[in-house]
Amino acid sequence: MPEAPFFLHPQLAADTVPVGDLPLCRALLSNDANYPWLVLVPRRPDIVELIDLAPADRAALGAEIDAAARALKTITECEKLNVAALGNVVPQLHVHVIGRRHSDAAWPRPVWGAAPAIAYDPAVRDGFVTALRRALGVAG
Amino acid sequence: MPEAPFFLHPQLAADTVPVGDLPLCRALLSNDANYPWLVLVPRRPDIVELIDLAPADRAALGAEIDAAARALKTITECEKLNVAALGNVVPQLHVHVIGRRHSDAAWPRPVWGAAPAIAYDPAVRDGFVTALRRALGVAG
Repeated sequence: MPEAPFFLHPQLAADTVPVGDLPLCRALLSNDANYPWLVLVPRRPDIVELIDLAPADRAALGAEIDAAARALKTITECEKLNVAALGNVVPQLHVHVIGRRHSDAAWPRPVWGAAPAIAYDPAVRDGFVTALRRALGVAG
Repeated sequence: MPEAPFFLHPQLAADTVPVGDLPLCRALLSNDANYPWLVLVPRRPDIVELIDLAPADRAALGAEIDAAARALKTITECEKLNVAALGNVVPQLHVHVIGRRHSDAAWPRPVWGAAPAIAYDPAVRDGFVTALRRALGVAG
């Protein structure tokens, strides 16, 4: 039986720009210049919780979270990493991987709801996406 | 060379009650009756980020996060799980595993900073800890 297709939740699509596909997850860049912020979405249908993933996918997700964290740390030299799977508003499983600075708009609070999103300057965004693709080894 | 000893950060100790030790993590119950909320702390010295863990420890942490999530879901019948490693205030690596309800004090926002903590009634707390120990297979 073919696997059911994967659809990205429209709210996640609206708030991000695509970076590329890792073996499990679609990697997205949050369009909020306040923080370097990746969102990883496992390309599996109908998954809400981490514990809904098959064991091999759960292991792959951990590795991809770490790869995203290392990419953010290397590229942005951020001072702290925040990793979270919340999903209270958008139910499709997605993991936030966020680089934090002591000078950022929300520090030391979590980022959600702390400051209005600031859309990236397109040239800055495109340069960041290119660096992320190189660090993650993905094509656009 | 013997491994450096593990010390629980005093802020984590102050905000929680011990549940028990999993193979990697000390499992703690947040003393906030607003939400069923476990905190997992890898018993390794000087670890701040998920990506600081050795690969075997990182894999173990993923499994222990899932075990904590399943225990909370089974015991509390919560409607959503929130999992997060933030550490902006307390630097020692710790992972929040929180059961959420549509009726809870913060829904749908994240829990941090949303509502003042309400200390458990001791008998309720002790009963919850006993149930958690049984679900997680740990001694107190």
